[in-house]
Amino acid sequence: MDVVARTRAFVDDELIPLEPDLLSKGWVAMLPTLRGKRDEAKKRGLWAPFLPQEHGGLGLTLLEYAHVSEVLGRGLLAHWVLNCQAPDVGNMELLIAHGTDAQKKQFLEPLTRGEIRSCFGMTEPEHAGSNPVWMSTRARREGDQLVIDGHKWFTTGADGASFCIVMAVTDPEAPLHGRASQIIVPTDTPGFRIVRNISVMGEPGADHPSHSEIRLENVRVPATNMLGPQGAGFALAQERLGPGRIHHCMRWIGICERAFELMVTRAATRELSPGKPLGTQQQIQLWIAESRAEIHAARLMVIDCAERIDRVGAHGARDYVSMIKFHVASVLQQVLDRAIQVHGALGMTDDTPLAYWYRHERAARIYDGPDEVHKASVAKRILQAHGMTARKD
Amino acid sequence: MDVVARTRAFVDDELIPLEPDLLSKGWVAMLPTLRGKRDEAKKRGLWAPFLPQEHGGLGLTLLEYAHVSEVLGRGLLAHWVLNCQAPDVGNMELLIAHGTDAQKKQFLEPLTRGEIRSCFGMTEPEHAGSNPVWMSTRARREGDQLVIDGHKWFTTGADGASFCIVMAVTDPEAPLHGRASQIIVPTDTPGFRIVRNISVMGEPGADHPSHSEIRLENVRVPATNMLGPQGAGFALAQERLGPGRIHHCMRWIGICERAFELMVTRAATRELSPGKPLGTQQQIQLWIAESRAEIHAARLMVIDCAERIDRVGAHGARDYVSMIKFHVASVLQQVLDRAIQVHGALGMTDDTPLAYWYRHERAARIYDGPDEVHKASVAKRILQAHGMTARKD
Amino acid sequence: MDVVARTRAFVDDELIPLEPDLLSKGWVAMLPTLRGKRDEAKKRGLWAPFLPQEHGGLGLTLLEYAHVSEVLGRGLLAHWVLNCQAPDVGNMELLIAHGTDAQKKQFLEPLTRGEIRSCFGMTEPEHAGSNPVWMSTRARREGDQLVIDGHKWFTTGADGASFCIVMAVTDPEAPLHGRASQIIVPTDTPGFRIVRNISVMGEPGADHPSHSEIRLENVRVPATNMLGPQGAGFALAQERLGPGRIHHCMRWIGICERAFELMVTRAATRELSPGKPLGTQQQIQLWIAESRAEIHAARLMVIDCAERIDRVGAHGARDYVSMIKFHVASVLQQVLDRAIQVHGALGMTDDTPLAYWYRHERAARIYDGPDEVHKASVAKRILQAHGMTARKD
Amino acid sequence: MDVVARTRAFVDDELIPLEPDLLSKGWVAMLPTLRGKRDEAKKRGLWAPFLPQEHGGLGLTLLEYAHVSEVLGRGLLAHWVLNCQAPDVGNMELLIAHGTDAQKKQFLEPLTRGEIRSCFGMTEPEHAGSNPVWMSTRARREGDQLVIDGHKWFTTGADGASFCIVMAVTDPEAPLHGRASQIIVPTDTPGFRIVRNISVMGEPGADHPSHSEIRLENVRVPATNMLGPQGAGFALAQERLGPGRIHHCMRWIGICERAFELMVTRAATRELSPGKPLGTQQQIQLWIAESRAEIHAARLMVIDCAERIDRVGAHGARDYVSMIKFHVASVLQQVLDRAIQVHGALGMTDDTPLAYWYRHERAARIYDGPDEVHKASVAKRILQAHGMTARKD
Repeated sequence: MDVVARTRAFVDDELIPLEPDLLSKGWVAMLPTLRGKRDEAKKRGLWAPFLPQEHGGLGLTLLEYAHVSEVLGRGLLAHWVLNCQAPDVGNMELLIAHGTDAQKKQFLEPLTRGEIRSCFGMTEPEHAGSNPVWMSTRARREGDQLVIDGHKWFTTGADGASFCIVMAVTDPEAPLHGRASQIIVPTDTPGFRIVRNISVMGEPGADHPSHSEIRLENVRVPATNMLGPQGAGFALAQERLGPGRIHHCMRWIGICERAFELMVTRAATRELSPGKPLGTQQQIQLWIAESRAEIHAARLMVIDCAERIDRVGAHGARDYVSMIKFHVASVLQQVLDRAIQVHGALGMTDDTPLAYWYRHERAARIYDGPDEVHKASVAKRILQAHGMTARKD
Repeated sequence: MDVVARTRAFVDDELIPLEPDLLSKGWVAMLPTLRGKRDEAKKRGLWAPFLPQEHGGLGLTLLEYAHVSEVLGRGLLAHWVLNCQAPDVGNMELLIAHGTDAQKKQFLEPLTRGEIRSCFGMTEPEHAGSNPVWMSTRARREGDQLVIDGHKWFTTGADGASFCIVMAVTDPEAPLHGRASQIIVPTDTPGFRIVRNISVMGEPGADHPSHSEIRLENVRVPATNMLGPQGAGFALAQERLGPGRIHHCMRWIGICERAFELMVTRAATRELSPGKPLGTQQQIQLWIAESRAEIHAARLMVIDCAERIDRVGAHGARDYVSMIKFHVASVLQQVLDRAIQVHGALGMTDDTPLAYWYRHERAARIYDGPDEVHKASVAKRILQAHGMTARKD
Repeated sequence: MDVVARTRAFVDDELIPLEPDLLSKGWVAMLPTLRGKRDEAKKRGLWAPFLPQEHGGLGLTLLEYAHVSEVLGRGLLAHWVLNCQAPDVGNMELLIAHGTDAQKKQFLEPLTRGEIRSCFGMTEPEHAGSNPVWMSTRARREGDQLVIDGHKWFTTGADGASFCIVMAVTDPEAPLHGRASQIIVPTDTPGFRIVRNISVMGEPGADHPSHSEIRLENVRVPATNMLGPQGAGFALAQERLGPGRIHHCMRWIGICERAFELMVTRAATRELSPGKPLGTQQQIQLWIAESRAEIHAARLMVIDCAERIDRVGAHGARDYVSMIKFHVASVLQQVLDRAIQVHGALGMTDDTPLAYWYRHERAARIYDGPDEVHKASVAKRILQAHGMTARKD
Repeated sequence: MDVVARTRAFVDDELIPLEPDLLSKGWVAMLPTLRGKRDEAKKRGLWAPFLPQEHGGLGLTLLEYAHVSEVLGRGLLAHWVLNCQAPDVGNMELLIAHGTDAQKKQFLEPLTRGEIRSCFGMTEPEHAGSNPVWMSTRARREGDQLVIDGHKWFTTGADGASFCIVMAVTDPEAPLHGRASQIIVPTDTPGFRIVRNISVMGEPGADHPSHSEIRLENVRVPATNMLGPQGAGFALAQERLGPGRIHHCMRWIGICERAFELMVTRAATRELSPGKPLGTQQQIQLWIAESRAEIHAARLMVIDCAERIDRVGAHGARDYVSMIKFHVASVLQQVLDRAIQVHGALGMTDDTPLAYWYRHERAARIYDGPDEVHKASVAKRILQAHGMTARKD
């Protein structure tokens, strides 16, 4: 696909060269430059590849986007520059599918144009993220207002966001999966307070790359800010997370490829003694071959899964989504670990992007459902298909 | 593909039910029954799917055969019953590509019809199999005869074979890869002697499932028994082994699928206590999910590799062949290990085929090039493509 | 300790040289020779090192015996020749601790002298071995007789045994752990029937190295054949299995050491090309170093555990017993796998003992409690000590 | 040992409570508080446990210190507070063993009292650290001065250090291992320049916890600043690194224990749903049991190694040092990875010390010799002891 090649050229020529600055000066200092790159991306016709064309994007299928997203994953900055960053992508998809016209006008349009940012408030510090239906944040109706009280954390990108889609229990007596709703909360609403940006793997966090702890105290928004039907919060969250997971996997393949290139280049050129590069060591060769095979297999799985989702939808392909979620995350971690080991002390430094990924992508096995949860859910469906029934206890 | 479904029905209905007899009575006792199944396979139009139609086969592409071979791999007997067993397949391919008309008439035709069996004498006990150009067996020309002296082992299926294709050094002074030739030796030639069937993983071996140690002492065959040009032995062996490796991988996927089914069925039905099957245990669930993902990825790799070979040939796809060789072998071993653990003591017995595969497919990481050799060769090509040159030392 | 050195000399000089015969001719053919070696062992003062001196043994502490058992583990025949073989050891220990004088005279004494063999009938094909209190075999009192009906399998060494200690439910209404009793059943009692020796990893089994399926149909023995108090069957089985597990671990360390020696010797001497042994390959070096470290750590754990048992008893050290059970079994399997890979095709053959151990010690992760059960029980005690309580469900 | 218990109380009561401040405010902000804790440590008689009593320490044997160091490893601050931090420990040991009286007075004494800090300049960016004899820094004699030119990096703690022990080639024509010498360079010497503190895993570094890149340009020091004999640099570095490695291993055991406690406490208390803590999940139980067994084995190895060094010296125990270096580093990484996974998103944050260790102890498999180097050197000695000789090529 031409768009893949053009995106790759943009990433390699325009964005990867900015990474040393990013790693030494931090995200906020890069913002002016990055905004210029966004303009350039729009000019080149690369903006928002996953978005339908009527919303200003390229309207790619998931399979097509998979190839683009892999290329974006090679760089630390590319998803943001093309407006493909989490959690905004998921929020745009939610608003497109379930937003009212007014919601779309107010919240979606500036988001698709990259004028504002948004966040998604789901995880709560008091409850295990792997049990998404256990939630303490409450929203009650008062007149034509919704009044929200709650406590969230790991609200990615809340710092500087214009609005937050908040998951809150609106129907505490409903069946477990029908209790929560999604409510759009402008972040300047009184009572919406960022307690702190949580320091993650040594990174205090600011602006887009940040994870906030948030208190909602008597937060009042118009009842029309409810996104989708009341009680549909959990269903919408699932709908949002399903494709979100494959987006991560695509990105991870890109990280794997870049880490692989760094590893091989280092092995081919770093000398152990004059004329004897690292790559002559059999251990290094084993890591290169195993990584090549594992990345190849992982990519085939992701491509296969994207095709399936295009064909049968995210729900029909949910086992394949779960499988790539845990399988690719594991390959990613292996490849990064080996790439660092091949770099030796240099691999520990922020002179390459490896250490950044090593730190932050440790979460790949945790966010959007830890490995254990995905594995158990795949297995349970297989076991049921083989006739397992168990005593309820 | 219709042929896949029909082959699967044949394997499931006709061959898998014979396995308990095989595992308790042994191969030789099964032969009359198995010959009847061969007739049935011919009648059903399933015979020799990989062979060109002019040689009595189905003329499938490698990609088509990949799907058939996976189905065959599910059973212990299916490859043999459809005349797809190693080493005869490789020998047929060699004779088709390089045999003279006389050689084809004498050796190939009865082989394609399943009337005789053959073997391939390459490995020598004195030399590491991973260095295929180091060989002591010698053949010298005397008049219109070739006189062979040497020592081979792991000559699969030699017991009962009608001929052996023997690798022997004919040009000891030639460059390393041009020293050996392949010579067809009828096994009743004086001086060709099976020293013993080597006991492998507790199995003494007899007839087709056997691995022999062989002495060749002053063995004389007509010079016209040379297969292909003199000095081409190594090149032909490579040509033979390349697709041979993907044949193994296809079969391994079939074994994985069958082992997976056994594992899941056991987990779904075996109770730890009344009403609480094994499959309720999270450890079992993890194994099931990880196995499912690994088999899925491995199959995608094998299919992808078969497509590549069909498109660019085995040489052009050699890195992909090497990658599936070590990657799928590793998945196979993992899946078998987990399937046995889920079966508990039953997994150790010969009441299921798991123990058979566990024992004999341990060799999957050894035969046709040990993992280490394939990994190193993949890595070296990647490193060279990234500019590595090393001091010769 | 002098006894360790003398035992090692006996194993190395007298027993290991018999292994090729064992591996090619089978156990039964070796029996006359092995009986001669038993006489020699008695003459050298090495007989039954674990037995108290009043029963004809050496009376070693568990720590002392740990060192001896490791040395025995190096050979395939040594435990039997010194009368240290399972399941007789456990039965002797049971009879010493709980037998009546009459039971000791009739069953224990000929066993300690090696004149008869015995077996232990616990596992049932219908019930998961990992739930030892779920059992269908029943014994009812009729007058001064016990009448037993049941179905057992994996009764090791039943073929040729003089008696079997049978676990049977005598008090079906008692609390779960108090339902079963242990009953000594002479194997010539009418109704005690060996259905078959179960073929295990390709080995049909005969005499001592065998695992039988057994039917007990209206088997009548004197009520005085009950071993220990009625209802104490489970408690006695635990008492028997605890030290039994450390016996296995000691033996496994011995297997590891022997496999390590075979691996290193092969690596040091097998040439890949003239003048370049396998051991020059870094992959081989990594395996050697990792194996050395893992065996070293495993041995330290076993020694530490033996000391603890000598000091505080098997119950007090039960977490340490569980930890060595799963940890050493895992090291064993790793080391055997690597040793086979270093041997290449030779590793698959029965020309070395590696394939024998690879096959039969796969069960190390299953028998006497699968890994999963031991891990869960260790973890649960740790979690409880950290205050975990869980809703009963 | 009483000192272990008293040290543990000090670490738990005085230092661990400071960690949240450290993780949110950084090292430099903590310095005033930490200096107060140093006074307290001296008052309690815990200062410098490894130092001989004549130098103000406790004069512990290595075995005794192993137990103390493990306890120190439980906290992020304890080694520094007790003056046990790298690289100062190694420098003190070097100066004690090889320093002249004048060197001891000027450099050692203030170091043992904790008044100054020091660093060790060995690694060079241009050369692989795993080949310690390949070095470009040069020192030439001019009159009674040594003139040094070179480029170093990963000079730990250079920022704020009073002197640096610099490895430099003084005899470029000598045999490989006799070319370098160690030279004490006060950091205020003209030409000694810190180019930057290298950002490591997201941490820019400052003061003691920092790793600097350093240029030495025409740096002149008195010839009397040479430490030990000319040409002995490499031998002294080895002498320094040997025990240094066991110091790391002791510390890692302490980290493992603390991470284990955090993991178990989290599992025991964090609820997945009301009344159902994480620890009820079998996957969590498996991680706990495996971690317990691995840490137990690793500690036994470290203790065993310390005993051996006390008995036969670091050189005689070098294989055991190498084995713990790679084995314990691997256990450490496993345990930290599991502890993070059990903590979920919290494990990614700097609200616990886990993320700090995860990031910085990734280097455990790299510094003081990467795993691969230690494994190869252990294996080569074993192979040589088994008679391996290889063609020099």
